[in-house]
Amino acid sequence: MNYQRFFEDAIDQLHAERRYRVFADLERIVGQFPRALWRANGRTQEITVWCSNDYLGMGQHPDVVAAMQQAAGGMGTGAGGTRNISGTSNPLVQLETELADLHGKEAGLVFTSGFISNEAAISTIARLLPNCLIISDELNHASMIEGVRRSGAEKKIFRHNDVTHLESILQTAGRERAKLIVFESVYSMDGDIAPIAQIADLADKYNAMTYIDEVHAVGMYGPHGGGITEREGLAHRIDVIEGTLAKAFGTLGGYITGTQSVIDAVRSYAPGFIFTTALPPAVAAAATAAIRHLKASQVEREAQQRQARRTKDVLAGAGLPVMDTPTHIVPVLVGDPELCKMASDRLLGVHGIYIQPINYPTVPRGTERLRITPSPFHTDALIAELQAALVETWDALGIPYAAAGRPAVAESERIIPLLVPTSGG
Amino acid sequence: MNYQRFFEDAIDQLHAERRYRVFADLERIVGQFPRALWRANGRTQEITVWCSNDYLGMGQHPDVVAAMQQAAGGMGTGAGGTRNISGTSNPLVQLETELADLHGKEAGLVFTSGFISNEAAISTIARLLPNCLIISDELNHASMIEGVRRSGAEKKIFRHNDVTHLESILQTAGRERAKLIVFESVYSMDGDIAPIAQIADLADKYNAMTYIDEVHAVGMYGPHGGGITEREGLAHRIDVIEGTLAKAFGTLGGYITGTQSVIDAVRSYAPGFIFTTALPPAVAAAATAAIRHLKASQVEREAQQRQARRTKDVLAGAGLPVMDTPTHIVPVLVGDPELCKMASDRLLGVHGIYIQPINYPTVPRGTERLRITPSPFHTDALIAELQAALVETWDALGIPYAAAGRPAVAESERIIPLLVPTSGG
Ligand SMILES: Cc1ncc(COP(=O)(O)O)c(C=O)c1O
Ligand SMILES: Cc1ncc(COP(=O)(O)O)c(C=O)c1O
Repeated sequence: MNYQRFFEDAIDQLHAERRYRVFADLERIVGQFPRALWRANGRTQEITVWCSNDYLGMGQHPDVVAAMQQAAGGMGTGAGGTRNISGTSNPLVQLETELADLHGKEAGLVFTSGFISNEAAISTIARLLPNCLIISDELNHASMIEGVRRSGAEKKIFRHNDVTHLESILQTAGRERAKLIVFESVYSMDGDIAPIAQIADLADKYNAMTYIDEVHAVGMYGPHGGGITEREGLAHRIDVIEGTLAKAFGTLGGYITGTQSVIDAVRSYAPGFIFTTALPPAVAAAATAAIRHLKASQVEREAQQRQARRTKDVLAGAGLPVMDTPTHIVPVLVGDPELCKMASDRLLGVHGIYIQPINYPTVPRGTERLRITPSPFHTDALIAELQAALVETWDALGIPYAAAGRPAVAESERIIPLLVPTSGG
Repeated sequence: MNYQRFFEDAIDQLHAERRYRVFADLERIVGQFPRALWRANGRTQEITVWCSNDYLGMGQHPDVVAAMQQAAGGMGTGAGGTRNISGTSNPLVQLETELADLHGKEAGLVFTSGFISNEAAISTIARLLPNCLIISDELNHASMIEGVRRSGAEKKIFRHNDVTHLESILQTAGRERAKLIVFESVYSMDGDIAPIAQIADLADKYNAMTYIDEVHAVGMYGPHGGGITEREGLAHRIDVIEGTLAKAFGTLGGYITGTQSVIDAVRSYAPGFIFTTALPPAVAAAATAAIRHLKASQVEREAQQRQARRTKDVLAGAGLPVMDTPTHIVPVLVGDPELCKMASDRLLGVHGIYIQPINYPTVPRGTERLRITPSPFHTDALIAELQAALVETWDALGIPYAAAGRPAVAESERIIPLLVPTSGG
C-alpha cells in the first residue's frame, strides 16, 4: 500500500471525470452585496455573486453585524466549551427560545451547522425509537442521508414528493411500528415544495413521526419567516422542524424545534450535539438579531420574491431555459457537465458574474444547471446585466435555448438520481 | 407507539440514573476572564469559570476580538454558502495556509468544528483506502469514534497508549494491508500524553498511516503552538494532524493538515465538508489572529503552565486528590457521580466557582472528577480562593482526601472504560 500514490490517484480520477473542484476565493463587501472581490492568479477583481445562499443579504444587515460585533466585544470570540462544559452562553439560550417561538414549538436546540443538526437529530431520534423505520424522500439532502445512515435503522425511500408511494410504504409498515418520515419543504436544486399537508395527513393516519428540513425556507416564507410550514399553517402538524442559521439568517449554525421531550432527548443523547464546542455567543447574537428582524419585517421577503420573479421573467424572455419554480430558486438548465462548467467559467472570467455550476451527483446527469438565487440586492439593472451575460455565454458555447412555451425540465421527465453524497454541495 | 410518551420515558430514565444535565447559562466578560455572569432562577450573579477550554483566554484577546469585529463589519456575519457555492472567503483561504504552516504540512482544510473534522476526515480516509483497518486508541474522543463508525471499515482498539498492544495488532494485519492509526496527543480527561515517537516508529515499521488529534494541545505546546508534535519535533512523522480552533485559539471550527493529496481527497469526498455552509469570514479572521499571535508569543503558554503547576501544587498542598498530569489539565478525583454533581453544585451556589462534574461515560465509573483548567488569567489569588472553596466543599460533603504521597489514580489502576458516546462532553 503506497498511501501517497493512492490519494494522488483518487484526485487524478476526479480530474479525469471533470469532477475536480476549485473553490473561488471571494470577499464579500458589506454595504455592496452582492458585490465581492474575487482573487485568482494574483489578481483581485470585483464581481457579482448570483449564487449565494445568504438569500436575503442578512449577513450585511447593520443590526446583525452590530449584534456580532457587540457580543464579540463583550463576551469574546468563542464559546470556550461544549454546551455542558461552560459553553452555554446567554445569547445561545436566547436564540433557542427565539427559534422555538418562530416555529410555535415548545423547545429549540442549536447545533454548529444545519448539516450536523440533521445528522445528529435524525440519527438520535431513530436510534432511540425501538425498531424505527425511516421513510425518506429520495431527494433529501446529504446531511439527512447521513443521519439516516448513522441511525442504523431500516429505511425506505419514497419517490420525490409522491404521497401515493409514501402511503404504500406506511401501509406496509402498519400503525404500530415506529416510523419517522423525513423530508424537506423547499428542495434547493429544483426549488419545488413538498406536499406538507398531505404528508401530515398520512402521518396522522398511520401514526408516524414527521421531520421536516426547512433550511431553504426559514426566514423567507411565512408572515414571520417561519418557513413553508408557517405560511401554510402547518407547523403544529409536524413533529420536528429543522432549519439553518447560515442561509436566510446570514450567520452559521443549525437547529431543531419540537416538543420539550423530543428536543430534550436529542440534547441528551446525540454525540454530534454533546461532544463539540458550542456556537460562539457572537454568532448566536447575530442569528437572533436576524431572526427578530425577519419576524417583524416583510420588506426583504417581498423584495426577494419580486426580484426572483423578475429574474425568471427576464431570463425566460430571452429564451433562456429557466426551470419554472414556485420559489426564490431560479435554475437555468444547461444539461451537460462540461458546458455547465464552461458557462460558469466564462460568466466569471468574461462577465464578472459568479454562478457555480451544479453537476452530478448534486443533480441528476443530463440536468446540469446554473442555480441562480436572486436576493433583494439584485437590482433590475443587475438582472438585465445577467440576462445579457447569459445570452452571450449561451451563444458563445452553443448551449440550447428553451423549447418555446414549456419549462425546460418537466417534473415527470426527471431522472431519479443516485444520491451518492460524494460531490456537489 | 406513543412517541410523546416514549421520549418522556427516555428523559425520565436519565433523571433516574442521575445523568440528566442542566446547562449553566453563562455570559463571559471580556477583559475580566475567567469571570462570567451566571443566570439561574431569575437571578444574575458574577462567578469564576474554572473549566473553560478557552485555555489561553484568546477569546478575549484584543487582536482576536478586533479581527472578528473588522471582518464582520467588512465582509458580513456569514459565509453565505458551502465552500463550493460561494462560501470560500479570503480569510478562510488565509486560515488554511496559516494552519498548514503551523504544522509544517503542505495543506490544511477547515471544517465547522473539530467534531466534524474528525468524523469527516477519519471516515473519508478509511473509506477511500481499500480494505482499510482502523487501529484506534481505546480512549479516543467521541468524534473520532463517530469517524471510525461512519467509515464502515474494520476497526481494532488498542489499550490506551499501549504500544505493545498496538504493535501486536499491526503485526497481525501485516505490512500490505492499508492501516490507519488514530490517536490523540493530549487526552483531555486525564491530561496524559501519547507516546507519539513510538507510534510513529511502529507506523514506519508496519507501513501504517497515522492520524493524530491535537485538539487539547494546539496553541499550547511547541515553540509556535503547533502542539505536542511540534514540541517533540515529530510533526513530519505524522500523516494527518487534526486540531480545533475552538479551544486554545478561542473561536470555532476544526481542521486537518497533511500532504496536498490527502487533504485534497478529504476536501473532494467528505460529505461533512462538502454539504455544509463554510465558516464565516469573521470567525476565520479571528482564528487566524489567534494562531498568528500564538506563533510569536510565549507569554500565554508560559503563564498557563505556571498557573497549572501552581494550581496542582496548591490543591495537593491541602491534601486534595489532584491527579498528577504532565499537562495543563488538572483533574481532581471525586470517585462518585452523586458527590461529583453535589460538589459542582455547591462550588457554584456557595462559592461562585463554576467547575462542571465529569461523570461516566465521559470517564470510567469510579473516577468521576472535577476537571480544572487553569488559564493565564487564573491568578494566584483565584487559585487560593479555589483551594479554600474545594476544601470547604470536600469537608461539607465528606469527599475523600488524597492518600498522602501518591497521585489519586495511578495509571495502572484505571478502569478500561466502555466508550458509549451518549453522554458526557
Ligand atoms: C436541505 C439542506 N439541509 C441542510 C443543509 C446544511 O445546512 P448548513 O449549511 O447549515 O450545514 C443544506 C445545505 O447546506 C441543505 O441544502
Ligand atoms: C479530543 C477532542 N477532539 C475533538 C473535539 C471536538 O472539537 P470541537 O469542539 O472543535 O468540535 C473535542 C472536544 O470538543 C475533543 O476533546
